[in-house]
Amino acid sequence: MMSQSENDLHPLENATRLTWHDGHWRGHTSPDYWAFIGPFGGATAATLLRAVLDHPDRIGDPLALTVNYCAPIAEGQFQIAIRAAKTNRSTQHWTMELCQQDGEALATATAVFAVRRPTWNHAVARIPHAPAPQTLARFENKLSRSSWIDRYDMRFVGGNPAFGATPQSEPQPADTLLWLRDAEPRRLDYLSLVSMSDAFFGRVFHILGVLVPFGTVTLTTYFHGGAQDMVAENDWVLGRAGASVFRNGFGDQSVELWAPDGRLLTTSIQATYYRDWKPADTSD
Amino acid sequence: MMSQSENDLHPLENATRLTWHDGHWRGHTSPDYWAFIGPFGGATAATLLRAVLDHPDRIGDPLALTVNYCAPIAEGQFQIAIRAAKTNRSTQHWTMELCQQDGEALATATAVFAVRRPTWNHAVARIPHAPAPQTLARFENKLSRSSWIDRYDMRFVGGNPAFGATPQSEPQPADTLLWLRDAEPRRLDYLSLVSMSDAFFGRVFHILGVLVPFGTVTLTTYFHGGAQDMVAENDWVLGRAGASVFRNGFGDQSVELWAPDGRLLTTSIQATYYRDWKPADTSD
Repeated sequence: MMSQSENDLHPLENATRLTWHDGHWRGHTSPDYWAFIGPFGGATAATLLRAVLDHPDRIGDPLALTVNYCAPIAEGQFQIAIRAAKTNRSTQHWTMELCQQDGEALATATAVFAVRRPTWNHAVARIPHAPAPQTLARFENKLSRSSWIDRYDMRFVGGNPAFGATPQSEPQPADTLLWLRDAEPRRLDYLSLVSMSDAFFGRVFHILGVLVPFGTVTLTTYFHGGAQDMVAENDWVLGRAGASVFRNGFGDQSVELWAPDGRLLTTSIQATYYRDWKPADTSD
Repeated sequence: MMSQSENDLHPLENATRLTWHDGHWRGHTSPDYWAFIGPFGGATAATLLRAVLDHPDRIGDPLALTVNYCAPIAEGQFQIAIRAAKTNRSTQHWTMELCQQDGEALATATAVFAVRRPTWNHAVARIPHAPAPQTLARFENKLSRSSWIDRYDMRFVGGNPAFGATPQSEPQPADTLLWLRDAEPRRLDYLSLVSMSDAFFGRVFHILGVLVPFGTVTLTTYFHGGAQDMVAENDWVLGRAGASVFRNGFGDQSVELWAPDGRLLTTSIQATYYRDWKPADTSD
């Protein structure tokens, strides 16, 4: 019965599914969202957001989520401790911590939820120009066996990533513009948006033109609308990713996710670690 | 003796000073960094960062700090509970919570510290063009009696802020470029950088040309270098602030702080609340 139910679930629903036991959430990693050495960070972030979304004390909709990736999560079960640190009339502050059997923190997180009300609105940033996704080729993943890549239909504007065996002689642009959507159709919501906010290849790969040891250390995502602004029927999202600096082992990434109608849905930043490219690293 | 010592301290040192009591830090708000309804958010963020910097278990330098402002902090004493959630070889994850006598969370925070090592480095973003600060007029604060504004020497590039009694008929630009430094000379460090990352007037004031009820809900700052890259003798910092969207009571702000030699020191984002302008609000 449970396995039947799992089969009916969308992979993202299954990966972020939580059950309540003895005052904390319990979940399980999913092979559908696997990255190099652990679960795809976007799925972990979505799971931590869901810990609030599904909590009976929750008020309002997500405004901000910060996830700190402390250590790799092993394949298997995990627990999420969660607490509403402060509930105001229109905002609510949550803290979460994910651990496995040994009790060591593997991810810490904070979330702000907010009740939005009609006000003066103003769009400063404008959606980047991009041809329609239907006119672009779907990205074929030959880069990696990381399963999370196959969960997305990605259409790169201006060239698919082509990472070689050795670095480019000069640094390449850090920016990427692409359409993306769930490969298995799913109504867009906060869970898919936060997962998509991490669904970009490392900027350092694009700059160097080669894969190097790399990972997300911390990810902060802002959600720019209430639930009615965020839910759509498997619409495409236009994603733009960039970076500002790489220094002494740590760099950054910024991401915007846009609705096709021009509304900015989310903005994110993440800090990442990287190591120097070495010929031996290609076998990592 | 204690009052003598306090008088000798720089205002930022004094505002962020912490003493250890019974397993937590104890501090006190400072009238030198006061905003409308509580301590200046930058000073609170610096205090929470200092809780880690001064902790004996700390390894490395600040990489990322997220501060969630849960409720106004009252004038007086506060406590900071702090915990190293996870210590790795080259990164360390901290969680903090600030409260006062009633024990309610007034701010929650997470920080990532990192040991940096020499690697391939790359600057993607470039410092904006700006005339030297010595050629620009110092901003004279006639906007507000918030004391924190007087802690900074601000030199706006392209016009001082001029907020009127009624909104502009059309939205004005959200971007601001300015030089800033501590008004009372102080060696630039992580504490002053995190405080400066919040030392910008609300973007909504610039867009509307008027003051409205406004506050920071959450602030995330990334530090783009180790201590040796961050410390300078009262150098100017070039700050650029922008925003992307304001919708249903919440907007954002992004900030970059640059060293005069062109190095990007920090990037920050914050989510802010705002309320509509009303004639009655001018007496707020």
